[in-house]
Amino acid sequence: MTYVEKLAAIRSLMKRQQIDAYLIPSSDPHISEYLPDRYKCIAWASGFTGSAGTLVITQSFAGLWTDSRYFVQAREQLADSGYQLVKLNVQHAAEYADWLVGNLPTGATVAFDGWLLAASLAAAVRKPLLAAGIVVEENVDLLTPLWLDRPALPRNPAYLLGEHIAGESTAAKLARLRADMERHHADAHLISSLDDIAWLLNMRGSDVVCNPVVLAFALVTSDTATLFIDQTKLSQQDRETLYAAGIGTADYAQVGRYLGNLSGRVLLLDPRRTCSHLYNALLPDIRDEINPTTRFKAVKNNVEIAHIRETMVKDGVALTRFFKWLEEAIGKEAITELSLAERLRHLRAEQEGFVGESFDTIAGYRAHGALPHYKATPASSSELRPEGLLLVDSGGQYRTGTTDITRVVSLGNVTATERADYTLVLKGMIEGSTAVFPSGTRGYQIDAITRKPLWDELRNYGHGTGHGVGFFLNVHEGPHTFNGAAVDVPVEPGMVTSIEPGLYREGDYGIRIENLVLSTYHADTLFGPFLAFETLTVCYIDTQLVDTSLLETKHTAWLNGYHAAVYERLAPHLDEQEQQWLAKKTAAI
Amino acid sequence: MTYVEKLAAIRSLMKRQQIDAYLIPSSDPHISEYLPDRYKCIAWASGFTGSAGTLVITQSFAGLWTDSRYFVQAREQLADSGYQLVKLNVQHAAEYADWLVGNLPTGATVAFDGWLLAASLAAAVRKPLLAAGIVVEENVDLLTPLWLDRPALPRNPAYLLGEHIAGESTAAKLARLRADMERHHADAHLISSLDDIAWLLNMRGSDVVCNPVVLAFALVTSDTATLFIDQTKLSQQDRETLYAAGIGTADYAQVGRYLGNLSGRVLLLDPRRTCSHLYNALLPDIRDEINPTTRFKAVKNNVEIAHIRETMVKDGVALTRFFKWLEEAIGKEAITELSLAERLRHLRAEQEGFVGESFDTIAGYRAHGALPHYKATPASSSELRPEGLLLVDSGGQYRTGTTDITRVVSLGNVTATERADYTLVLKGMIEGSTAVFPSGTRGYQIDAITRKPLWDELRNYGHGTGHGVGFFLNVHEGPHTFNGAAVDVPVEPGMVTSIEPGLYREGDYGIRIENLVLSTYHADTLFGPFLAFETLTVCYIDTQLVDTSLLETKHTAWLNGYHAAVYERLAPHLDEQEQQWLAKKTAAI
Repeated sequence: MTYVEKLAAIRSLMKRQQIDAYLIPSSDPHISEYLPDRYKCIAWASGFTGSAGTLVITQSFAGLWTDSRYFVQAREQLADSGYQLVKLNVQHAAEYADWLVGNLPTGATVAFDGWLLAASLAAAVRKPLLAAGIVVEENVDLLTPLWLDRPALPRNPAYLLGEHIAGESTAAKLARLRADMERHHADAHLISSLDDIAWLLNMRGSDVVCNPVVLAFALVTSDTATLFIDQTKLSQQDRETLYAAGIGTADYAQVGRYLGNLSGRVLLLDPRRTCSHLYNALLPDIRDEINPTTRFKAVKNNVEIAHIRETMVKDGVALTRFFKWLEEAIGKEAITELSLAERLRHLRAEQEGFVGESFDTIAGYRAHGALPHYKATPASSSELRPEGLLLVDSGGQYRTGTTDITRVVSLGNVTATERADYTLVLKGMIEGSTAVFPSGTRGYQIDAITRKPLWDELRNYGHGTGHGVGFFLNVHEGPHTFNGAAVDVPVEPGMVTSIEPGLYREGDYGIRIENLVLSTYHADTLFGPFLAFETLTVCYIDTQLVDTSLLETKHTAWLNGYHAAVYERLAPHLDEQEQQWLAKKTAAI
Repeated sequence: MTYVEKLAAIRSLMKRQQIDAYLIPSSDPHISEYLPDRYKCIAWASGFTGSAGTLVITQSFAGLWTDSRYFVQAREQLADSGYQLVKLNVQHAAEYADWLVGNLPTGATVAFDGWLLAASLAAAVRKPLLAAGIVVEENVDLLTPLWLDRPALPRNPAYLLGEHIAGESTAAKLARLRADMERHHADAHLISSLDDIAWLLNMRGSDVVCNPVVLAFALVTSDTATLFIDQTKLSQQDRETLYAAGIGTADYAQVGRYLGNLSGRVLLLDPRRTCSHLYNALLPDIRDEINPTTRFKAVKNNVEIAHIRETMVKDGVALTRFFKWLEEAIGKEAITELSLAERLRHLRAEQEGFVGESFDTIAGYRAHGALPHYKATPASSSELRPEGLLLVDSGGQYRTGTTDITRVVSLGNVTATERADYTLVLKGMIEGSTAVFPSGTRGYQIDAITRKPLWDELRNYGHGTGHGVGFFLNVHEGPHTFNGAAVDVPVEPGMVTSIEPGLYREGDYGIRIENLVLSTYHADTLFGPFLAFETLTVCYIDTQLVDTSLLETKHTAWLNGYHAAVYERLAPHLDEQEQQWLAKKTAAI
């Protein structure tokens, strides 16, 4: 079926079921960012492959609501699909609810599949609709009947990490979780978010591309813990290990039935990470709280930190080889955005413990670099020439950590504006990385400090400054974030976060420089404890693009110190030619 | 009665009425920060005179919950009162609710006077109590029967400002308000907050010390507007002017009855600025929103801005005369913290349009300067000697604007640490004042930029960086604020805010340097519009305390430029001796 035919079929089903508007969100029963194929509903229905959006279908209109990251991509992918792009003012906001109120008569019916919408989002959608006298039906799946080859749920094997990797036993994590439940006067706790479950059980898998997680739910009470999972995923031995830690297993589909038995209990649950269907099926008293595991997971233990530091060296070796190859091959062999991403993947794969990419590489040459979430396709993939800027944002999943790094390199003929822009972005990255700040500081304060050098020159970037990063888990994890939004979560020692300011000139080029940093305890003072950052990423920063006249002494000193450390840590793993090349790249300026 | 006797009398009433815990909050039916005498319940019951706190009384315990600003003061004032100080972890949080849950049995009764608690706070208190099976009674006034000489409500006259002062007619403001109500699909809007009412009606009075507001409620519908007020306060002419603008008047006490008639209407209302009693009396559907007038009022119009600029010159003249007198008199005549505050008030009163102080002057000599909210009493008032630091935080209410300024001057024998601390605070103040930032920037980002120079040297201050300031209205107004809290309100052109970093060494001295700034449009760029600040305050900054080696060239340049402007604007209003003195104080460094 074409997208237009699918749209007609959905509308025909809507008519038959007396549904006036149907919503198709970008989510799954675990409110994941990256989706198993079975839940790529928007791509199936409209062809749009961005990671965030909502389709709204009525008999006379069909639209995709998405945010500025995807305007260009959506316009291209939705051509001839029957869907129009509707621009969101605020990322993730349910602005289509206002549209529905404005465009549907009282008494109309809006429907969606409650398995695919967070309970909190469903509530936000429901409120204005009900106020306008519109009926909301939450358990309507119109896609499965039409999507004849809809993929099944993934059945990939899962496995447990040893404590020598995870640094804390599942039993110890469960004890911490139960103490937190008690603090919230909760008898039980449902976890739907896959990375929280993976962290709690020291379990990994490959059910979702780039995210080493396993499709599952977990239900923890004061004396039981149940993992709802396709039981064929786990080896007999791993099941026994879990059992010994006090964790029973039950079938994935049984979660609803177990929840039904919680009547009279107080259930801690995060409505932002739980689907509306399960939320509505619940009888018990709900304590609306962020999952404690989300807070725990963000603070890495010393074993994890030691592994991450080593993993960064492996990643740095792969990246050094990659950029050396690129510099030597450019102008001599045909290189495209797609082929260089493939080369980078191969170089990472040579490193011990490599499992896969932590997200699809963003390799943006010249104007493509100005699209912060650009993903090359065979049709768009540019061939590189020995000139202009290349932005490469990539990361790896290793058994011992997750990486995420962005570098911009000049392929030749640097302009003064490119150099100034690059230097200001670098200055922002250094300002953020070298910040010392009192305990209790929020990510939005680190954001402002990072942006200041760009603001001073009337420049800015439209995305956040940084995001939490998992330990051999999702490359985006909360609860902390470094951006301008009012996210009221303090930076704590042990958190791993990216610092990635940028600058984008549409149609021309994009710049972003990204390192991962570890928050650390810095000093006790009369004014309370202070924290600082340790830079984790080990990879040179292209100094050809630096205009030192725009840096203060302290910034140049930081860069030279960083480069000395990069060389020192990577050299033992490089051959002589590579060492010589890296020595040049990391020479003091 | 002594405080102990009052406490016994309250407990006796509690027993008779079967109340197990009684709450006495620091508020009034308008959720004001500054209270009419009638509502100074905590001072009457316990002797504590701080601006924030809650008394909690049971048969076996009596405590004052207050925040760190008041720990020292509370400890002193509560001695022998029968009340203990309980330290709040988070300012304004209802932490006593957790204490009640932990200390009362199921079935116990907690009571308070619903006129004196914001509806939002009452809900936050109610929730954990009800969850613990505790009964909550919201309409219990135990004080009036015991407080035989309880002051009546103030009956001071009110008056209207001309449009040449206010810059916008009441009719125009009402039209804007009604458009906003329509946007929220609200038929009616109740305003309880006194400064919002004063702004909307271009009305001022003197019912509350330091705040030129009038005790009143306002109820606006799509075609009516009613001011609930003691009608003797208004002249016949002002009543006619209001009537011509479409505003009727009714008796203050009638507001509840009018609200009772709104059944079936949609009422826009801010539960954070409306008392629980009125909120609970309401039948209509509530739209929970910040008062639109709070948002409107924060953005000053051009007439107000022109008046504020002139007012700052008047205030600067008074301050110049004050600091000149102080420098010349110190060591020659007896000067105390109290007497210098009195002198400052007199000097301001010489200025045209002066109405009164905008808050009680904080004059803190040496160690007293380290208490950010210090207020000298006859017992505490220090006598000044020609040495050490003096902090003076003061402000005036003028018919044409409200001022708020803090300066620290050296009375002699400056130490190196004092100089370094002072210079770092000044550097932070300059960094904040000279920030340029994209439209959409939040106050917490300005906060971080201001603190950065202090953080870099492992120093910090425990209060916010700045607050909104009214136009001949309250010296503290929202919705914006420059502090670390997650207050999601963008800085907009036309807002007036203080920038007042500080540094406090307990037992030694305190430093704070405060200017008011106006947010202004700065430039349109490829990256969107940028804003900046115009400094409004016109008063020299003591350069004897500056260590220029700690400043960058740009900071010194800013200071010299500021001082040139201060001299230029004040000199025409000063006599020759004063000019000579100010010329020295504002000489370039």
